[in-house]
Amino acid sequence: MEPKKTYKTFRYLTGVAWKSGRRAVVSSDGRPDIEVSSPPEFKGDAGFWTPEDMFVASVDLCTLMTFLAFAQRKELDFASYESTAEGVLEFVEGKYRFTEIILRPHLVLKSESDTERARQILDDAHKGCLVSNSITAAVKMLPEIRIAAPAA
Amino acid sequence: MEPKKTYKTFRYLTGVAWKSGRRAVVSSDGRPDIEVSSPPEFKGDAGFWTPEDMFVASVDLCTLMTFLAFAQRKELDFASYESTAEGVLEFVEGKYRFTEIILRPHLVLKSESDTERARQILDDAHKGCLVSNSITAAVKMLPEIRIAAPAA
Repeated sequence: MEPKKTYKTFRYLTGVAWKSGRRAVVSSDGRPDIEVSSPPEFKGDAGFWTPEDMFVASVDLCTLMTFLAFAQRKELDFASYESTAEGVLEFVEGKYRFTEIILRPHLVLKSESDTERARQILDDAHKGCLVSNSITAAVKMLPEIRIAAPAA
Repeated sequence: MEPKKTYKTFRYLTGVAWKSGRRAVVSSDGRPDIEVSSPPEFKGDAGFWTPEDMFVASVDLCTLMTFLAFAQRKELDFASYESTAEGVLEFVEGKYRFTEIILRPHLVLKSESDTERARQILDDAHKGCLVSNSITAAVKMLPEIRIAAPAA
């Protein structure tokens, strides 16, 4: 008989506190506070992180962290990983919700021979990201893979 | 005939960049960068915001911002609003996902006569939050309403 793998349950705790107008502070034990606002289109002040940004960023970040875990496990060596995310907020069936999040990871490899393997790991990270698995928005990934220029 | 209300589509753009190990930076145009990591239980470093924290915080924050909008519209006067959120990450049907997010808003009112109205506005904010409307986790709200002590 195979040993049965057990999976733990994890809990994440955060706090928010209203400041004034549409401004607030978000906190989590041991982390630096982040000043936030509603976005300007919802009467907030520009230049602050918003709930909408944090939601969209959490999807891109979780995909990155999942990629890092899988790349380590598969011993994929890479030079850099940067990504942008675009969240689309639409009014559907009587309410606003995020309908789509488009991720555009730019991965730079050290060796061209890793390209297909890297593409597979990106795809696995896309499917395995636990934040993406917790949302209703369709998460689309449009990866770009390049090879680092050899050192001069 | 009633005039047809039109609803705009909004787009939110964020960026991430890998630094080293399980560390990265998250950015959004005009906002301060935030240093992030995987949580320690997933091989990251303690003391940094994580994708999990940002996801959970975005739900609590969005609920707060929705409350602020509704309270302004209904001319509800209040002294303070603080809240904590707890996100439960579980392994379900072959993958990890957030199954529940519990919000515990503590609202302090200036007048006891506003209690029922405030409870309704909290409930409306809970149902109207656009991030909650975009996730599969069950969002539960356990509000506490108090009345500010009169000035001495």
